[in-house]
Amino acid sequence: MKNKGLLVVVSGPSGAGKGTICKRLLEKNNDIKISVSTTTRGARVGEVEGKNYFFVSKNEFQDMLKQDALLEYAKVYDNYYGTPKKYVLENLERGNDVLLEIDIVGALQVKEKFKDGVFIFILPPSLEELKNRIVGRGTESAKDIEKRYGCALEEIEQVIKYDYAVINDDIERATIDVEGIIKAEKCKVSRIHEDIKSIFY
Amino acid sequence: MKNKGLLVVVSGPSGAGKGTICKRLLEKNNDIKISVSTTTRGARVGEVEGKNYFFVSKNEFQDMLKQDALLEYAKVYDNYYGTPKKYVLENLERGNDVLLEIDIVGALQVKEKFKDGVFIFILPPSLEELKNRIVGRGTESAKDIEKRYGCALEEIEQVIKYDYAVINDDIERATIDVEGIIKAEKCKVSRIHEDIKSIFY
Repeated sequence: MKNKGLLVVVSGPSGAGKGTICKRLLEKNNDIKISVSTTTRGARVGEVEGKNYFFVSKNEFQDMLKQDALLEYAKVYDNYYGTPKKYVLENLERGNDVLLEIDIVGALQVKEKFKDGVFIFILPPSLEELKNRIVGRGTESAKDIEKRYGCALEEIEQVIKYDYAVINDDIERATIDVEGIIKAEKCKVSRIHEDIKSIFY
Repeated sequence: MKNKGLLVVVSGPSGAGKGTICKRLLEKNNDIKISVSTTTRGARVGEVEGKNYFFVSKNEFQDMLKQDALLEYAKVYDNYYGTPKKYVLENLERGNDVLLEIDIVGALQVKEKFKDGVFIFILPPSLEELKNRIVGRGTESAKDIEKRYGCALEEIEQVIKYDYAVINDDIERATIDVEGIIKAEKCKVSRIHEDIKSIFY
């Protein structure tokens, strides 16, 4: 049975570890395609065009918006970030699973358009651990840490809008949960009933 | 987070291989409890009380029915078969996952009572393979084989009433699918939202 690919959206507050889980998931499953975001901010040292981001001018970004070429977008400070629609749609059509690692606002925009997507929220194991992880970055002032922590708490309440929540107490275990979710979704009768009918009745 | 256990119902037509998958699942996951059916038929050579079945008299079975002590039951030829409720409920309450390997009629009875159960239908990979497997038992007449095959085809149409369908083209792969489904169900926000709230907000 060759179906359309699965759109897997992995999201969650900063400090939950969604980036690390997605990295591990891609290492273990090289048939999953990762969607690369586009941004108007300049490339940082070491960032590679087409790998970390597609870097575009503000005019180019505006053109993409006008052409409805983005699945979701957000403005952060003075820069725009978005998910190009073409790559995602083409891969899903070819039967490839596509992974989006995006923030909560973006994920909820995608959910409006892709009812069939699978929406996974990554949670830290506890409030204490969340704070440790935010502090652990070591790059921010006490005030910034408090702000980031407060935002994370507010964001966690959005979990109710997601299909699944994975507690990231251990990267390997959490990655296995995400893999299980992908396998389970591909076994849902609501997704594969037409195929079953075509084989058996 | 310690939740109630998951009731996992594995069902499907004869020849699909549900028994083999359940056996493999239990070998790999010794924390899953298997529910043992009760029956009024006599024990066959090698069958062990409490392992293969709980063997009871027709009177005892009728008493269980009167006491609403069975989750589901069926009469096959002259004998009754049923799933004792107590073992299942007690284990779920303790947080243990309970596996029921039962036929389609029984599974649909359980579904009426356990909206929270997870209902998995095991499918053969093709019609041809289904027929091969039924013939392969080598114990039945051509007429019995035709009858069993016809029943299996009718039963497969019941897949629409299940949550998941797992194609049994390979025991190991199919078992991994079932394990994925169990993991995914435990990550469903609809199941664990209260726990998430109690930790984070």
